[in-house]
Amino acid sequence: MTRTWMRTEIAEQSQAVAATVEEVRRRAEQVRTAMTGRRRILLVARGSSDNAAVYGRYLVETRLGIPAALAAPSVATHYHARLDLSDTLVVSVSQSGRTEEIVAVQRWAAELGAATIGISNDASSPLATESDVPLTTQAGVERAVPATKSYSAQLAALAGLAAALDGGEVLWELLARVPAELSRLESAEEGVAGAVDLLAESDDVLVTGRGLGFGTALEVGLKLEETCLRPVRGLSYADLRHGPIAVVGPGLTAVVVAAPDGPMLAPIVELAGDLAGRGARVLGVGGDAALAAASSYHVPGPELPEPVAPIGLIVPAQLVVESLARRLGLDPDAPRGLSKVTATDPR
Amino acid sequence: MTRTWMRTEIAEQSQAVAATVEEVRRRAEQVRTAMTGRRRILLVARGSSDNAAVYGRYLVETRLGIPAALAAPSVATHYHARLDLSDTLVVSVSQSGRTEEIVAVQRWAAELGAATIGISNDASSPLATESDVPLTTQAGVERAVPATKSYSAQLAALAGLAAALDGGEVLWELLARVPAELSRLESAEEGVAGAVDLLAESDDVLVTGRGLGFGTALEVGLKLEETCLRPVRGLSYADLRHGPIAVVGPGLTAVVVAAPDGPMLAPIVELAGDLAGRGARVLGVGGDAALAAASSYHVPGPELPEPVAPIGLIVPAQLVVESLARRLGLDPDAPRGLSKVTATDPR
Repeated sequence: MTRTWMRTEIAEQSQAVAATVEEVRRRAEQVRTAMTGRRRILLVARGSSDNAAVYGRYLVETRLGIPAALAAPSVATHYHARLDLSDTLVVSVSQSGRTEEIVAVQRWAAELGAATIGISNDASSPLATESDVPLTTQAGVERAVPATKSYSAQLAALAGLAAALDGGEVLWELLARVPAELSRLESAEEGVAGAVDLLAESDDVLVTGRGLGFGTALEVGLKLEETCLRPVRGLSYADLRHGPIAVVGPGLTAVVVAAPDGPMLAPIVELAGDLAGRGARVLGVGGDAALAAASSYHVPGPELPEPVAPIGLIVPAQLVVESLARRLGLDPDAPRGLSKVTATDPR
Repeated sequence: MTRTWMRTEIAEQSQAVAATVEEVRRRAEQVRTAMTGRRRILLVARGSSDNAAVYGRYLVETRLGIPAALAAPSVATHYHARLDLSDTLVVSVSQSGRTEEIVAVQRWAAELGAATIGISNDASSPLATESDVPLTTQAGVERAVPATKSYSAQLAALAGLAAALDGGEVLWELLARVPAELSRLESAEEGVAGAVDLLAESDDVLVTGRGLGFGTALEVGLKLEETCLRPVRGLSYADLRHGPIAVVGPGLTAVVVAAPDGPMLAPIVELAGDLAGRGARVLGVGGDAALAAASSYHVPGPELPEPVAPIGLIVPAQLVVESLARRLGLDPDAPRGLSKVTATDPR
């Protein structure tokens, strides 16, 4: 059997992330200059890039103490609101750099006084060329439609952006540990086959995570849904506790995603136990031995501290999705109904 | 048959909203004072209150041009981040005013320099007494566990807050039209029975909306899920277009929620047509004749302009949920696994 593009690109992430971190580090001074005199960060993205932005938001707030938020693009594109963004650094994230909506929001933000950083995988894209500081992910050409290396490279770019603004060495040192861990996870494929067995029999799937790992949970849910053509709900820990947990019972498979340390680990392990207690099958991804013990089945994650763990945590999930798609007789490289440049409004 | 509490409380919304608007108007000057010297608004909420906050965010940005965002509570409660909130008005929303997490985030925000407005249904709750300006919704005692009149009163309080900050009369005038429209929708029950028939046969349900109506879509999804014990996905228009639309096909019921006017109506009608074209059954709620024409079945909504339409739009959805729960042999007043004061972390 020939390898799918998706499987090949999962293996290329180590290199893509290493090169992206290096590229961002070269621009660190420009990033700091763009933030000078600004008090907050506004992230602009859709789809997988939006899940990366969720990680960026938590990282910026928890590591830098800078208020951060995700933009509601329609406020710009449909309501044409005139916000005062003179105190704001806007960070736009789009793999292609050509998603019209995101480019339009970046233009709108610049007009309203924001400094702009455009994270894309194409230095010649409008998002890159029109931004004050383009941060170009070094993922190379991605042939499979589901984003893998372009996604982890976005996470790396956002972590690099935080490292640049932080000014210290700690985050850069954590980032230096990531590429080797991506390689290890990719080649080990530990726990992947068993997770595929479990998910292949699951009609009702929910994915949950929290804090710095929440974006990963959303991305796992999106990938499972778009690649495996199953409806999957991605819910935050809190949203799940506030209502929907009432509908959890036998028949549900809950994918619980966690970093191996940090303040979210204990509550997430408790949630996994609670879900199992309600009869759900719990597929733990990452976390520690306690998450493994609370799970019906466990896929080990990265041995990386929480601030950079999400860059590794997505790898076993990608391997599961790629393999599950094949198991279901689907083509992981070209899921039905998706194209590479996304458009919110049909053209 | 005796009326359920939920059904009774749906009927009480007209009065609850009218009294809440009056109460907020009495505090308008205090609200303006709290915002003085502040540049942005941060909303803090969970569950149904979070869906109300989504409406508040769009209203503040689109009507007032003030940047607004939803807080990530764990940034405060678990990561203990030290954000500079000296330029921020924090608006906390909790029906009980006693949700520990929300009270904790409001305290954290005040320590970090924010001015605080606490929207709750209990003037003696910690959220109210500890805030700079308490805005007390006038919903009275709510006996059914699913929030109905306390939810619409929260929307009214948020709209009143925007009206107070706006300073003009337009929003107040729009708000003055709401109570009568709530009464009309409640007593007409137009289209409700047919929607219940359709949903009773639907195993896979998705709810979508956009912009000012997006919070309503999330609330309809949450109510359907927690009251009727069915997994329901609430997705924004954009999130749906960016991937999950690939899994839409026969077997899915898509509930499409829209205001009767505004810049979102045309794209939502197009989305409804697209969903129907993929074989989904489309249940249109609100919107206009074009949405009705694009839908498999249509429940009329309020005749109110988009900025206040969400306060009315929830009424037919509440009627559908209450009736659907009874049809399914469930008790709308006391869904399994829910309690009135919500806790993100189990105690």
